[in-house]
Amino acid sequence: MSSPVIFPFKSNINLDRKSNRHLYLQLCDQMIGFIKSGKLAPSTKLPGSRKLSDDLAIHRKTVVSAYDELISQGWIESIPAKGTFVSQDLPIIKPKKLQDSSILLEAKDTAGFTFKKRRHLIRKGIETIQATLKVDDGVPDHRLAPIDDIAKIYRNITKKAHHKKLLIYGDIYGNIELRKALVTYLNQTRGLKINIDNVLITRGSQMGIYLASQLLLNNKKIIITGNTNYMTADNTFIEADGIIKRVAVDKQGLDTNEIEKVCKKNQISAVYVTSHHHHPTTVTLSAERRMHLLDLAQQYNFAIIEDDYDYDFHYNNAPILPLACNDSQGNVIYIGGFTKIIAPALRVGYFIAPKEVVDEAARLRRILDRQGDTLLEQTLARMIQNGDVQRHSNKVRRIYKTRRDLFCQLLMEKLTDFFEFEIPKGGMAFWVKLKKPYHWDLVMVASQKQNLTFINDWRRYDNDNSGHNGFRMGFAALNEEEIEEVVEKLVRAMNSIKT
Amino acid sequence: MSSPVIFPFKSNINLDRKSNRHLYLQLCDQMIGFIKSGKLAPSTKLPGSRKLSDDLAIHRKTVVSAYDELISQGWIESIPAKGTFVSQDLPIIKPKKLQDSSILLEAKDTAGFTFKKRRHLIRKGIETIQATLKVDDGVPDHRLAPIDDIAKIYRNITKKAHHKKLLIYGDIYGNIELRKALVTYLNQTRGLKINIDNVLITRGSQMGIYLASQLLLNNKKIIITGNTNYMTADNTFIEADGIIKRVAVDKQGLDTNEIEKVCKKNQISAVYVTSHHHHPTTVTLSAERRMHLLDLAQQYNFAIIEDDYDYDFHYNNAPILPLACNDSQGNVIYIGGFTKIIAPALRVGYFIAPKEVVDEAARLRRILDRQGDTLLEQTLARMIQNGDVQRHSNKVRRIYKTRRDLFCQLLMEKLTDFFEFEIPKGGMAFWVKLKKPYHWDLVMVASQKQNLTFINDWRRYDNDNSGHNGFRMGFAALNEEEIEEVVEKLVRAMNSIKT
Repeated sequence: MSSPVIFPFKSNINLDRKSNRHLYLQLCDQMIGFIKSGKLAPSTKLPGSRKLSDDLAIHRKTVVSAYDELISQGWIESIPAKGTFVSQDLPIIKPKKLQDSSILLEAKDTAGFTFKKRRHLIRKGIETIQATLKVDDGVPDHRLAPIDDIAKIYRNITKKAHHKKLLIYGDIYGNIELRKALVTYLNQTRGLKINIDNVLITRGSQMGIYLASQLLLNNKKIIITGNTNYMTADNTFIEADGIIKRVAVDKQGLDTNEIEKVCKKNQISAVYVTSHHHHPTTVTLSAERRMHLLDLAQQYNFAIIEDDYDYDFHYNNAPILPLACNDSQGNVIYIGGFTKIIAPALRVGYFIAPKEVVDEAARLRRILDRQGDTLLEQTLARMIQNGDVQRHSNKVRRIYKTRRDLFCQLLMEKLTDFFEFEIPKGGMAFWVKLKKPYHWDLVMVASQKQNLTFINDWRRYDNDNSGHNGFRMGFAALNEEEIEEVVEKLVRAMNSIKT
Repeated sequence: MSSPVIFPFKSNINLDRKSNRHLYLQLCDQMIGFIKSGKLAPSTKLPGSRKLSDDLAIHRKTVVSAYDELISQGWIESIPAKGTFVSQDLPIIKPKKLQDSSILLEAKDTAGFTFKKRRHLIRKGIETIQATLKVDDGVPDHRLAPIDDIAKIYRNITKKAHHKKLLIYGDIYGNIELRKALVTYLNQTRGLKINIDNVLITRGSQMGIYLASQLLLNNKKIIITGNTNYMTADNTFIEADGIIKRVAVDKQGLDTNEIEKVCKKNQISAVYVTSHHHHPTTVTLSAERRMHLLDLAQQYNFAIIEDDYDYDFHYNNAPILPLACNDSQGNVIYIGGFTKIIAPALRVGYFIAPKEVVDEAARLRRILDRQGDTLLEQTLARMIQNGDVQRHSNKVRRIYKTRRDLFCQLLMEKLTDFFEFEIPKGGMAFWVKLKKPYHWDLVMVASQKQNLTFINDWRRYDNDNSGHNGFRMGFAALNEEEIEEVVEKLVRAMNSIKT
């Protein structure tokens, strides 16, 4: 307990008075470093606080605080009438290689352990370069988001003292006001017949797809989707250990006769359908197929995951009621959200299903992220109750329809030599097919020369690696001027590769 | 194509003018119902719009809109010069049993498909009844949340036009400003040595635990936790298909010698540790054990999931630096969040790990809920940059320390006949053990008679069903008056069951 103090603190301790970190903590950090590196061995006697403060030209209190801290952390110990010593029962640390200290100062890239690497989550389709004009695959125009209304209502809610309760841990099913508002809203606008027990609030519809997949697809269960299908949903099914079987998608949507054939051969767990506007091809599932699909679900006891991500954007007539509104036997999990109407970053969605399914999904949701943002959920409840959501959705629907019509008109006037497409009845994107002998890769390169880019490339839609020639071009996020510019640039690009 | 109209529309269609649903859509709904029930068979000729509008006493335009809608949905078809007919190629629907229509009008409880039921997610410990006074298991006081600051900054951000970009789909790693602010903040306050590539923003720390578990524990991999441990974390490990092995927790935290023994016999994937204040027992992992644990991780190549959920609440001295700050070989996944400092409902947390682990976790996070709330993340970045977070955390730390001290003092003065406990150095709860011969069940019943309740019961901490007698009592969310009232009620309750 009495090895002499031979360690040269004065020359080894470097304190930075300009740092935001307290001096006494800097002193602690460095002493811990010396203890751990073995430079200060267990039982080494430390200088008194007066001596050390003189040596380092700092206030004595700083040294006392540092020693207190080190004692409380167990690195050193104070022995009455003897002094302060490096703790005896620290494990003796082998001096580390020099390299180690440099590792400490740099960001770490590689892990010292193994973990599951998910090839299936590496995304197909290369994100493309920066350009002045960008065409996405069908997302809302953030410039139209009713963010002022949201911020005002949010602020009003926070001003009321009784709303502070919203800040504490909330219901795993979601904010009760929003669930109530949704029951009325969905029953009125979608013809559902649900009550509050059928409603789980999620973050956007992606969480709904994740929850449904985790409930349905463990242990190599089969899910049927379209060829081609929304890539992120496919990834979610694989992550949940499901096996994807694909059926054709034609102008009436998923081919339900093919689904029936699969059902006759295999026990299937679920069908995933974007019934209103198939992702990516934008077609609407026809009335006959809807009834056929529901009948099959009842007959073969599978779940229909109905992802109604863009219900509110239908331009030719009123939206078509979802499968969920004719679900008499509890076969449909109906998924939707406000990200497309309000803003993608404000992620609030819903998962509508029979109560026992909602209960199970809520328990799973608890361990994903505990609960939603109750303040934001309450804000949305208010916006549904006072009609803001409906008014906003009517407003942007009109705007998007105008944009669709203009984009269509220009494509038809100027680009029919190269592209084929149907006018989408709804949604936010065209499904554009490239005529022979052109190839999307060349279109991308030529477009980039015109300073026009796309957020991803055609490979994303090429489920079976067959060189599918379809590609989604979003129109909703571009205003009329931008649409004209996009088409002009496309015309120049296509003419430059014209054969 | 010319079966006569024999269906009595007038007496069968009931339109509700007070409903929020458009009249034409009500008409559609009901006609679809008749088509589907077989009351209106395929090829049935429908009345002209004038006739039907007269019969129903509605505007002719309403009927025209309804017919347009039904045509576009494929239920009916219009044949020029002949009239309007129920579509021919609808599948003939077998009339449903009467019962079905009542099912349609009620909430569904049971599913028409099978799904995975997770016994492990059903929570131990019964949520108790309503009472005027409630003791939680250690959560923040929502009355102290800096919600005005948050709402103001949030509002300011939304006012700037260029911030509207935050509303569109954002980075799956989280808002870049928050990641930058966190690098500085964590390096300064926790002694980490990270850069931005080591940072993934999550929803609260629960999502961090979920992501880490999914990366590490697939296929029955082993994770070591304490006996007893935070129940929700345990549930998350089981959900990820991991096998939990438990080691003792004593006054120095997890017993690392026991961990070493397990490592010698088994390949383990991870150790989960709440190093700063063990959940639920509140003890701090000692310096020796920290170093031992890091050495073991390097030697046996396992991950340490360090859940530092209440780093900011340490009362006796400066917080103890996390294991992550001495992680030279990339063995630590460091998880924390702002829910405990700011408010549980505003779920923003972080997942700090070697870059390759962060990249993998981000890809997985994309399919959980795509991304975080970028507006809220930007708000928090601003609050870190301007020191609001630090000031607020200092303020509530002082308040919670006062509450802890008062609660301790009163328990020691009045309840030592019944309870044993150590003064927690940090956190928001006591770990209270009940002396013999008392039983928590009786304490709960007696407390409820005093109108005092607890958010859950002792079973929650009883990992091995051994009748563990420890129980968490939160002090942070109770002000001084409430603490006095709780202790008074407890005294009356305990005296009433005194033997």
